[in-house]
Amino acid sequence: MSHKDYPRPSVTTDVIIFTLRGGDLQVLLVRRKNPPFQGVWAIPGGFVGMDESLEEAALRELEEETRVRDVYLEQLYTFGDPHRDPRGRTITVAYIALVPATAIHPHAGDDAAAARWWSVYSLPPLAFDHADILSYALQRLRYKLEYTAVVFELLPDTFALSELRAAFEVILGEELDKRNFRRKILSAHVIEETGTYRAGEGRPAKLYRFRDDAVAEVKARRLFP
Amino acid sequence: MSHKDYPRPSVTTDVIIFTLRGGDLQVLLVRRKNPPFQGVWAIPGGFVGMDESLEEAALRELEEETRVRDVYLEQLYTFGDPHRDPRGRTITVAYIALVPATAIHPHAGDDAAAARWWSVYSLPPLAFDHADILSYALQRLRYKLEYTAVVFELLPDTFALSELRAAFEVILGEELDKRNFRRKILSAHVIEETGTYRAGEGRPAKLYRFRDDAVAEVKARRLFP
Repeated sequence: MSHKDYPRPSVTTDVIIFTLRGGDLQVLLVRRKNPPFQGVWAIPGGFVGMDESLEEAALRELEEETRVRDVYLEQLYTFGDPHRDPRGRTITVAYIALVPATAIHPHAGDDAAAARWWSVYSLPPLAFDHADILSYALQRLRYKLEYTAVVFELLPDTFALSELRAAFEVILGEELDKRNFRRKILSAHVIEETGTYRAGEGRPAKLYRFRDDAVAEVKARRLFP
Repeated sequence: MSHKDYPRPSVTTDVIIFTLRGGDLQVLLVRRKNPPFQGVWAIPGGFVGMDESLEEAALRELEEETRVRDVYLEQLYTFGDPHRDPRGRTITVAYIALVPATAIHPHAGDDAAAARWWSVYSLPPLAFDHADILSYALQRLRYKLEYTAVVFELLPDTFALSELRAAFEVILGEELDKRNFRRKILSAHVIEETGTYRAGEGRPAKLYRFRDDAVAEVKARRLFP
């Protein structure tokens, strides 16, 4: 058979957009306006244009939903079960985006009835195989949290150790021992003291920031067209 | 637009098949029989059938080329630059396969003029974006070598420490300090003594094997339909 004789699947990108909001790990979901799975919540995504790269399609989707562009975006995995979309063979290239906890107002695109943040610990039923995709995205995020400085993408520039630990705890979904966490994170040489303190109730909290080299390593993974 | 109105790209899987042969890290390449890139060497791959999953397509490709099936196969990355194939938009889902160093006779499929092993350190010019794909595959293999017991997939069941170090060296492409390597690998608790020795010239070599739990972790990543 020649190149054009082969039947072709549809190809989409889906973007799992994570943020830390209100001490919680949240993900942006859209409510489907049209069948199949009409009215059901889903990971935002859409068809890849014939002239755009996969990364461009994912960035476009991210920008449509959140109005942000200059954030961490990473290819997660490509899901291609022949029966994952009842409309016909559809392969989706899934991406993870990490969006900082500044005020982002989700925006429902043309094909969505609504868009909002959901706690990853209290999700609604999801369309297609999106529960599996989200579960894998969370697994990847947890893995990267332990092996890279990627969490800086979700934090303000300076933070107390207790705030960093709280971020780790809500992403990992488990309580961490205070002293062990402190020892491990300090010995990993990815954060440094800023020399400033935050006043508050009780003892002033020493403020830290991520080291430039740790941040640069993570930023190098950001994708831009 | 409805689901079927969107123009569709072609989707292929490509499989980067690594092995250790003759003290070298080698990769299986095929020589293209037809245009484009006629006569040029390429990573083996092909179109995804409409009724097979991506993993099934990759396994089929692997089996056609090597006659092996029960080996390590991992999704690497999906490459989708709009201009990577002169025939038209083609997205490829790339996989890595690790094939043990037993006698495997590469087999040229219908669309290949030849198939043979090439040293990753002495590659011919490659078709399409296959040089980039292969380079990324090698980067992933090296990363996994340092963080997992994946190298067991490429080694005999028992081995001397010097043989294990030689495998690391040829995959990483650098010489390793003998004593440091010994200290690190033993303290990682992924290998254990077998209690047996191999006689040879000079001192008999103590034989090791990978621990069951380390192997199980890697095997859990093997994909089968």
